[in-house]
Amino acid sequence: MTSENMKRRAGEKAVTFIEDKMTIGLGSGTTVNWMLKKLGERVREGLNVTGVSSSVKTEKLARELGIPVIGIDQVDRLDLAVDGADEADRNFTLIKGGGGSLLREKMILELAEMKIIIVDYSKRVDELGKFPVPVEITPFAWEKTTKLVAGTGCRPELRTADGVPFVTDNGNYILDCAFGVGKVNPELHTVLKTMTGVVETGIFTDLADVIVTGSHHDVSIERR
Amino acid sequence: MTSENMKRRAGEKAVTFIEDKMTIGLGSGTTVNWMLKKLGERVREGLNVTGVSSSVKTEKLARELGIPVIGIDQVDRLDLAVDGADEADRNFTLIKGGGGSLLREKMILELAEMKIIIVDYSKRVDELGKFPVPVEITPFAWEKTTKLVAGTGCRPELRTADGVPFVTDNGNYILDCAFGVGKVNPELHTVLKTMTGVVETGIFTDLADVIVTGSHHDVSIERR
Repeated sequence: MTSENMKRRAGEKAVTFIEDKMTIGLGSGTTVNWMLKKLGERVREGLNVTGVSSSVKTEKLARELGIPVIGIDQVDRLDLAVDGADEADRNFTLIKGGGGSLLREKMILELAEMKIIIVDYSKRVDELGKFPVPVEITPFAWEKTTKLVAGTGCRPELRTADGVPFVTDNGNYILDCAFGVGKVNPELHTVLKTMTGVVETGIFTDLADVIVTGSHHDVSIERR
Repeated sequence: MTSENMKRRAGEKAVTFIEDKMTIGLGSGTTVNWMLKKLGERVREGLNVTGVSSSVKTEKLARELGIPVIGIDQVDRLDLAVDGADEADRNFTLIKGGGGSLLREKMILELAEMKIIIVDYSKRVDELGKFPVPVEITPFAWEKTTKLVAGTGCRPELRTADGVPFVTDNGNYILDCAFGVGKVNPELHTVLKTMTGVVETGIFTDLADVIVTGSHHDVSIERR
């Protein structure tokens, strides 16, 4: 079974949590795209839901699939949110932001009463840190901020696209920070987030209620 | 003696700390402008200094006065920085950002070996909080962030200019948050800064080594 099929299993399973008249936060990434495709089918069958998107890409795909999408400023809360993750550990702490939408994804999850994370089993780890932590920083004096971040024990690399700095939806840069397995935890988020110039980090704490993991043979559901 | 004359006294006194060949962080605001005018005189008399500016306005004035200015990315550290404050308390904690440049001002002060704050005596208070704390936030979902911030015990007001949201040099919004006297301290900064959507706050801790206060009769120098 390919990785894509494992993602599909997780994404499609997440749709079983979605009920009629729910307002749903829509994350970003390839696993979420499988969820969207299945949800689109359900909508065409008559399910009545409204989505709030964390990225331009997700919004575009949702609309193509017939899923109604409204802006985040039109809601006070979300019934449920579904998003992927780059890593998820035993404590349900996550590393997210490989796609660059970490700030908006975090806002969406914070608004949701039920937070569902969908991954293939390669992302389900005992300890976080193999995947680099994305850290969103302001472009002004970014080299100074990079030095500050390096002081926490990583080698930050400025994310680039086509040879120039990658710019987030919020106009910021991203440092990809490889800390190593076992070095990434909620305390590290606080240390990084309180640094001048840091806008957000890809360490997500208390933002997963359910983890749906697609594997070779089946799909598992873990509740916190 | 008018308030402007008190600012002038503080600003001009700060120049006595500046020595030949220093690289100097230049803050922003009316009190800093008096410092710049005096420093410009000294430069014309032969003093050799280089400035790093915290705002476009300061950079423009410095250049007009003949003070050489370089970008923040061209330095690793600053010998000294001079900046104003909206309030300074007994512990040398400050409220800054009335002018909207809080993030850049904080970065400049963090880089300086000696940090000099210049104020008129009306800004020198026992306890912070009469002046609203500026909180820089990302425009995306700003109403959600405003609610989060309000939960800390203030009435946040979105800063506007000409009827539209004021936008910082970093492309963000500012909430002016009136907490009340005695309610503003370093812990409040940490609470606010760790909120999703908050980029920086105007609470400055450990960023003043010397406070120069201009008053009706004289100018005082306090060292931490």
